[in-house]
Amino acid sequence: MATVKLMTDAEAGTIPEVKAVFDDIRETRGSDFINNVWRALANDPEGLKRTWEQVKAVMAMPGALDPKTREMIYIAVSAANGCGYCVHSHTAAARAKGMTDQEHGELTQIIGLAAMTNHLVTSLQVPLDPEFEVT
Amino acid sequence: MATVKLMTDAEAGTIPEVKAVFDDIRETRGSDFINNVWRALANDPEGLKRTWEQVKAVMAMPGALDPKTREMIYIAVSAANGCGYCVHSHTAAARAKGMTDQEHGELTQIIGLAAMTNHLVTSLQVPLDPEFEVT
Amino acid sequence: MATVKLMTDAEAGTIPEVKAVFDDIRETRGSDFINNVWRALANDPEGLKRTWEQVKAVMAMPGALDPKTREMIYIAVSAANGCGYCVHSHTAAARAKGMTDQEHGELTQIIGLAAMTNHLVTSLQVPLDPEFEVT
Amino acid sequence: MATVKLMTDAEAGTIPEVKAVFDDIRETRGSDFINNVWRALANDPEGLKRTWEQVKAVMAMPGALDPKTREMIYIAVSAANGCGYCVHSHTAAARAKGMTDQEHGELTQIIGLAAMTNHLVTSLQVPLDPEFEVT
Amino acid sequence: MATVKLMTDAEAGTIPEVKAVFDDIRETRGSDFINNVWRALANDPEGLKRTWEQVKAVMAMPGALDPKTREMIYIAVSAANGCGYCVHSHTAAARAKGMTDQEHGELTQIIGLAAMTNHLVTSLQVPLDPEFEVT
Amino acid sequence: MATVKLMTDAEAGTIPEVKAVFDDIRETRGSDFINNVWRALANDPEGLKRTWEQVKAVMAMPGALDPKTREMIYIAVSAANGCGYCVHSHTAAARAKGMTDQEHGELTQIIGLAAMTNHLVTSLQVPLDPEFEVT
Repeated sequence: MATVKLMTDAEAGTIPEVKAVFDDIRETRGSDFINNVWRALANDPEGLKRTWEQVKAVMAMPGALDPKTREMIYIAVSAANGCGYCVHSHTAAARAKGMTDQEHGELTQIIGLAAMTNHLVTSLQVPLDPEFEVT
Repeated sequence: MATVKLMTDAEAGTIPEVKAVFDDIRETRGSDFINNVWRALANDPEGLKRTWEQVKAVMAMPGALDPKTREMIYIAVSAANGCGYCVHSHTAAARAKGMTDQEHGELTQIIGLAAMTNHLVTSLQVPLDPEFEVT
Repeated sequence: MATVKLMTDAEAGTIPEVKAVFDDIRETRGSDFINNVWRALANDPEGLKRTWEQVKAVMAMPGALDPKTREMIYIAVSAANGCGYCVHSHTAAARAKGMTDQEHGELTQIIGLAAMTNHLVTSLQVPLDPEFEVT
Repeated sequence: MATVKLMTDAEAGTIPEVKAVFDDIRETRGSDFINNVWRALANDPEGLKRTWEQVKAVMAMPGALDPKTREMIYIAVSAANGCGYCVHSHTAAARAKGMTDQEHGELTQIIGLAAMTNHLVTSLQVPLDPEFEVT
Repeated sequence: MATVKLMTDAEAGTIPEVKAVFDDIRETRGSDFINNVWRALANDPEGLKRTWEQVKAVMAMPGALDPKTREMIYIAVSAANGCGYCVHSHTAAARAKGMTDQEHGELTQIIGLAAMTNHLVTSLQVPLDPEFEVT
Repeated sequence: MATVKLMTDAEAGTIPEVKAVFDDIRETRGSDFINNVWRALANDPEGLKRTWEQVKAVMAMPGALDPKTREMIYIAVSAANGCGYCVHSHTAAARAKGMTDQEHGELTQIIGLAAMTNHLVTSLQVPLDPEFEVT
């Protein structure tokens, strides 16, 4: 179904840069499972490495937002961008990091509401209130 | 700039359904400020009422997510949908509800990262891993 | 503000293919006004001609949908695609073709509602009911 | 395929708030069929209720736009937002409310045309003509 | 799966305007294969003709951009618009016109990067530098 | 207009990590000009560094695509995502790297065409031809 082949572990084992990323994904996540997005990106080893490092840095960086909240924000962007794969994978990740059914329900409702008002505002071309300007 | 007139308080005072919503916005928020989206929507009093009730229910409903997190999810959807007005108004709201500069920086980075992987996945048409299916 | 120059009537007069399109826009619309999108497209005379012929064919083709309904559908797509210019120009066109304030209010509400359920469905990755399949 | 379970009628029968919405959908539509979006939303009974009431109010509100036109606008927004499920379900609804093959063909062409000019305008960053401003 | 029937060659043979377009697609491409988008559009013969003429003119017009580069730009837009069918068909076309695996990898990375900075800029509502204005 | 302050050179001079990025931007581009997106991102020095390194790697990586083509792909994604700032800045960059007016015209037409067929395909929910599958 992908526009590229999904790289197997056997193939990845023959390309050191890919193998190193797959190893790091497994170690970072504490799981042997490598999901398809990485197997697709592996066709471009440099792109794979850069993407993984970016994901690792942003999603695991020490900071103020907890891992569950980060995943919920990720779901929100993925839904708005229409990426079904991403909605699925990050909903699974959010649940693994503690998102409850109630939180998932609230998240979904906020996504729907925001989309509604986004479209209302764009339909009406509402001008920015000066009160919202950062001085 | 809007495709409709922005209703002033004087005009709103002559339409009971609009006045009731404006009053409720002021009471709910504890502020006299009515921002432009409501003044634009006021041209359709029923639409105004329905939209405000939806916003009030979803953003103020008792629940598991705190007000600041709700606003951050709202910003994420609004950015992905390209609604500049909404990004501005909900960034102001998130700050009013306690979002720090560091949290804002992290939020921004997650929005950017998610958009990147959303587009990578769509470009490669990555098929869903069966592991992500809800059984 | 555009990324290209907006062609004046004086310049258009020196490029026969552009002049022909501008003349046809004026004749078709029964108005001397040429809005900016055509002045921007005029930098590529063939693109200008092809775009205008497409607009003329689709928006003026004999058919089942009346001109006002066509403009309202145009507004809906433009709002969802976040094109402020297009929302403005087609709202003006819809009004010129008879759209009332009440119809505009209803249109806006449908756009907002559809966006909400679009995002709910994508957030939840709802599978297609077999009942909706065309056999 | 969904990120939540689709609620069966048996389960819905045990949750009064869900049962009430399912009953109202059936009565309003004069059909026993409950499509998947409602079965997915049912995991969050309050969200289900709020969404259904919004859909019912906007799509069935007394007004100037006929039911068929409302569904066609809904299709337009859903296509632009890339929601395949919504395109399918509202195309079925529009047909049930009288949309002919010719009207569907014209609708499709307007959606395609609008998207084309939306992207041309954004590519060229065309500035708004003062003539389109609402004074 | 489509919302319309996909027209077979047997049916197309009975509608002269459709047959003429199918013949031209086959001749232009030097292949007997007609992909599904044309079979879906064929339900509206005028829309089919107009769409094919537009595709033929833009993608085959004599010009400065080579066919491979045109297809890569097409992929980029299709990915950003979330059209999986289009990503697939134009990735196949780009490969047929010489796109290498390395070029595909670079294309994918640029698409992902652009999406990231697009969302960063929108999240931060960065104002345009006067240096970018066309004078 | 931004939701954050735009960092001046004076302020940047007091934050070593920001100063290092600004210095590298100036050296890499051979120009003293730092555009606003970097001044906005500078509020989050780590995010600034990561974003700049990603841009530098992808846009300047040794590869098969020339710098002008890379910028044109960037413009295509930015237009589809509705980022006006990005369209402006990358159109300027593409011109600086040799994009002619004719190439710009062709690029614009391809963006418009792709958007049109993207929306036609999504409106009709065209199923993927097995011929496009990567085996």
